[in-house]
Amino acid sequence: MRMKAAVAYGVRQPMVIEEVELESPHAGEVMVKLTATGVCHSDVHSYTGDLPREWPVILGHEGAGVVTEVGAGVTRVKSGDHVILTFLPSCGKCHWCHVGQPTMCDLGQYLRTGKLLDGTSRLRRAKDKKEINHFLFVSTFAEYTVAPEASLVKVAEYLPLEKLCLLGCGFTTGFGAVTNSAHIRPGETVTIVGCGGLGLAAVQGAAASGAGKIIAIDIHEAKLSMAKKFGATHTIQSRHNVDEVIKEVMDITWGQGTDYSFEFVGGSETDETAQLAFKSIRKGGSMFMVGVGAIGKKTMPIDPYTLALWRKKLQGVLFGDAQFQADIPRYVDLYEQKKINLDDMITKYIKLEQVNEAFEDIFAGNKVARSVIRFS
Amino acid sequence: MRMKAAVAYGVRQPMVIEEVELESPHAGEVMVKLTATGVCHSDVHSYTGDLPREWPVILGHEGAGVVTEVGAGVTRVKSGDHVILTFLPSCGKCHWCHVGQPTMCDLGQYLRTGKLLDGTSRLRRAKDKKEINHFLFVSTFAEYTVAPEASLVKVAEYLPLEKLCLLGCGFTTGFGAVTNSAHIRPGETVTIVGCGGLGLAAVQGAAASGAGKIIAIDIHEAKLSMAKKFGATHTIQSRHNVDEVIKEVMDITWGQGTDYSFEFVGGSETDETAQLAFKSIRKGGSMFMVGVGAIGKKTMPIDPYTLALWRKKLQGVLFGDAQFQADIPRYVDLYEQKKINLDDMITKYIKLEQVNEAFEDIFAGNKVARSVIRFS
Repeated sequence: MRMKAAVAYGVRQPMVIEEVELESPHAGEVMVKLTATGVCHSDVHSYTGDLPREWPVILGHEGAGVVTEVGAGVTRVKSGDHVILTFLPSCGKCHWCHVGQPTMCDLGQYLRTGKLLDGTSRLRRAKDKKEINHFLFVSTFAEYTVAPEASLVKVAEYLPLEKLCLLGCGFTTGFGAVTNSAHIRPGETVTIVGCGGLGLAAVQGAAASGAGKIIAIDIHEAKLSMAKKFGATHTIQSRHNVDEVIKEVMDITWGQGTDYSFEFVGGSETDETAQLAFKSIRKGGSMFMVGVGAIGKKTMPIDPYTLALWRKKLQGVLFGDAQFQADIPRYVDLYEQKKINLDDMITKYIKLEQVNEAFEDIFAGNKVARSVIRFS
Repeated sequence: MRMKAAVAYGVRQPMVIEEVELESPHAGEVMVKLTATGVCHSDVHSYTGDLPREWPVILGHEGAGVVTEVGAGVTRVKSGDHVILTFLPSCGKCHWCHVGQPTMCDLGQYLRTGKLLDGTSRLRRAKDKKEINHFLFVSTFAEYTVAPEASLVKVAEYLPLEKLCLLGCGFTTGFGAVTNSAHIRPGETVTIVGCGGLGLAAVQGAAASGAGKIIAIDIHEAKLSMAKKFGATHTIQSRHNVDEVIKEVMDITWGQGTDYSFEFVGGSETDETAQLAFKSIRKGGSMFMVGVGAIGKKTMPIDPYTLALWRKKLQGVLFGDAQFQADIPRYVDLYEQKKINLDDMITKYIKLEQVNEAFEDIFAGNKVARSVIRFS
């Protein structure tokens, strides 16, 4: 079948909206008509070459839609089901899926091949049949996608997919980091470094967990205002002066530092933001590293003496350590009960044709938690 | 009273054995006649200036002896009791002691003052009454010491203090890192980087926990032989080629990496040894940083991308995360049952006059797990 998609041809080349041929699902695969997809910083990291991809490729990995066709052997979903497309798959068969750690599913090793699990692509350019690569198995900057069954989570049909799409990456990553990776007890204290889509979801996670002081740090006042709205008790506007920010954190916490910190920036500012997160925790506190930037280009200068003498813990988190087949439906319930707020996380609805503008907004650090592409 | 002690006068200046005046214990303090004290790498780090001290100072912090006098208000011990002197105090009154984390006891902040807890010293040079600094409150390179009650753990009287002294720092640090900080289940796999006194105690901890593969790494063959004796299932002789060592670890673990790793080196080689420990763990694995080197001079170049995508955990450990008032008596029981081996950890008994030679042995990386000074 033919569909419209945003095709990326190379580093920092604006994506081209064009006709693409999508092959029917092979065994174990599912075709989904996208209702909506968020635009996430990891799409941008691919666009800038920080997370290298094979070109051409259809980016997008925070989608939700309706199943239109299933391949042989598919049992989790059927036509008409509403699904979230997750940027990580969970096969249900490997060691890690069996021990309840699906974010480490062995299928992850194929995520960067640009192909689906049988090693081939379902995507070709309409005009010359040139093969196009998949992105994280889901390629949601398109009207339709074919993805492995392992990349789908079925959700209730009466809730708006144009909100729930955030659960496929950003919201789950931020909310899960706080509620899965850390185990916050009511009254414990939290520092959140970086208040984009992930950080704001983390603020919600901290608030939902009954955290005491929730300190949100960002360079953009507008993002800090949103953090306040979602439950931050304190905000610190930071212009990269690590020592001054840490002094504020210490003042707020009676000189102790917070029990936990979460780093959601990564990228070119890792050094300072990682230092903020590392220094803001108390002795024995835990820092969670969620933001990832350029592969192999950045390192955090962690001092082993401080690490050991202050008994600090530093943990990497991927997709919020979620058991996402269980957690995403739980988040859907929380959304229905209005205990989490997805609506206000979405600061702009756009059309597929505006996807390059959404990238520009992210570069500019605008007042955007999430732009969501709505398909007609 | 007068006693013989080893006084350190400055960076890399050989310690001088001389007469020192020791004042009687003030309130909350205890005088101990030392039976024995281990010579630990942290003494050497002070000697080299990597961990700066005020001079002159009496080093030594892994001692055991018999109580000879107690100050006002002391209730934990009485004259004649056998005690281990721990390099960290636990007051029993602060937040951290109350939550079962005595290695974070608030008294720790005074450890580097060179004074006891009332801000004064009990030590003066006999010939001119010049004040001498305390070291970690215990200063065990001396025939007697006065230390806070908070730095003492009482132990059974019928076991040899010249072995048990190792429990005051090194053995507890290594064994505790494995058995407290990590929670190894039988069959899980472990990499231990650095097989000095701490690393060898960690090997014993892994063996006692029923670990499956226990991979010991060191540059000295003699230390690897000792590691084998204490329970290592595999040893790797490393000459700083990180990639080759990691390949061996991966071959041993079927390409997975180990569940846990422990870094016991710190110091000038932190970069490579930390990389070894970080790269040797599997996805989702935990690295424990125990070795500390020069304050603020070394950093570990940790890649946030790897940390997050591989969901690795990195945790600093001090004094084996021990609840040492409970753990040290437990280790004494294990020693009595011959389930831990302290005897073979001690590779040399020396006199106080030989303390400078023991430092030289450590510099030379000789076949020494621990030299122990025995007082007559």
